[in-house]
Amino acid sequence: MVKKGTHRRNKIECKTKKMGSKDVKLVSYWVSPFGKRAEWALKLKGVEYEYIEEDIYNKSNLLLELNPVHKKVPVLVHGNKAIAESFVILEYIDETWKQYPLMPHDPYQRAHARFWAISAEQKVGEGSWIALIKSGEEKEKALDKASEVLEKIEEEIKGKKFFGGDNIGYLDIALGWIPCIIPLWEEVGSMQIIDPLKLPAINEWMTNFLNHPVVKDSLPPRDKALDYFHSLKKKNAPN
Amino acid sequence: MVKKGTHRRNKIECKTKKMGSKDVKLVSYWVSPFGKRAEWALKLKGVEYEYIEEDIYNKSNLLLELNPVHKKVPVLVHGNKAIAESFVILEYIDETWKQYPLMPHDPYQRAHARFWAISAEQKVGEGSWIALIKSGEEKEKALDKASEVLEKIEEEIKGKKFFGGDNIGYLDIALGWIPCIIPLWEEVGSMQIIDPLKLPAINEWMTNFLNHPVVKDSLPPRDKALDYFHSLKKKNAPN
Repeated sequence: MVKKGTHRRNKIECKTKKMGSKDVKLVSYWVSPFGKRAEWALKLKGVEYEYIEEDIYNKSNLLLELNPVHKKVPVLVHGNKAIAESFVILEYIDETWKQYPLMPHDPYQRAHARFWAISAEQKVGEGSWIALIKSGEEKEKALDKASEVLEKIEEEIKGKKFFGGDNIGYLDIALGWIPCIIPLWEEVGSMQIIDPLKLPAINEWMTNFLNHPVVKDSLPPRDKALDYFHSLKKKNAPN
Repeated sequence: MVKKGTHRRNKIECKTKKMGSKDVKLVSYWVSPFGKRAEWALKLKGVEYEYIEEDIYNKSNLLLELNPVHKKVPVLVHGNKAIAESFVILEYIDETWKQYPLMPHDPYQRAHARFWAISAEQKVGEGSWIALIKSGEEKEKALDKASEVLEKIEEEIKGKKFFGGDNIGYLDIALGWIPCIIPLWEEVGSMQIIDPLKLPAINEWMTNFLNHPVVKDSLPPRDKALDYFHSLKKKNAPN
């Protein structure tokens, strides 16, 4: 998030001029599930943008300038405004470009979507990550933690094509990392996180989500992603 | 967050009948800075509610029923709807009761407020907590981490009474844990997190915030809170 002071704004303006001529830019990393959230939202709304690939292992001055607090992708740049943190970006996109609304209208349904977005990331995301890099009892415990919350999400999606109803909405985008990443982690970690027999509604939603044209065209190349997560697992595995 | 299915709704209705007759209830813990967010928002908007104290060390069935995913306070109950996670609650309150709007209107200003709300909690909150329970190099590193982000927040508040301008807004409430908790942790941890000479604008904001009538009347008793954090530090200190 960039302060709106003149000095900083000038710097951003200068940077964004160098970045290209489009008014909307997305700085991300090819396999980032957080970056995908912003990509999907922009594409669903038909917002034209310039994609800027960041090397997260050798961070550019541009990224450090745009997101000095977290130094992480994704960052959305809109004119001279920089916005970081994927859920913040998602709400910004939805509030700025009104076509194809992502958030439900009703305050409780909105709270419900926000709750599951952050809870799935905290519980299923953390559990799955630990299961990927650990083994033995620690791995089993982490898988149980993820399962417990996935069973509750199963109840949420039962009988619906998307969390948003007939169309992809905020919660579909927020949970989109599940169909994108979990099958890869399952393969790399030799484990099962989503059992289609126990979680048939989530399994069906995953197929619906991955088959959506906007999502289908945005998936990282499977073999490259598998290699990436194999090396990530190796790097993060306990000695 | 409670599923809207009939079975679960009946359970909640039954529970809330036992809880009292008011339509809005807040389940919290006397010293919870997350619970305070909901309290301040409801009070600023003049929403009448019933406060229900939870024993977080011996969790009630009510809490486990209302927030089965995280099993944590605060939970806001509005009619038969239960909402958990303090930032989700805060947006729900602001979207449900329109008087005294907390969120700015402009999408970028909203993104800005949401960004600093979560970033301060992640960076300053985590850094201060580690500084409280650790010592030596670990403590110093954690204090540096908190300082780095506090310096950026200093730039945000410079020249303003509140982050919301002349009145308390979303970001004031979201960061309200800083004036409430940090001075207590500084005392318990024999450390300085907010140096008034280095962070004069934050220091002034803290005074403004604590002197606001809604906040002033809601602070936990100082001695009781100090005892609580002393014992928390002891319990979490490395052996």
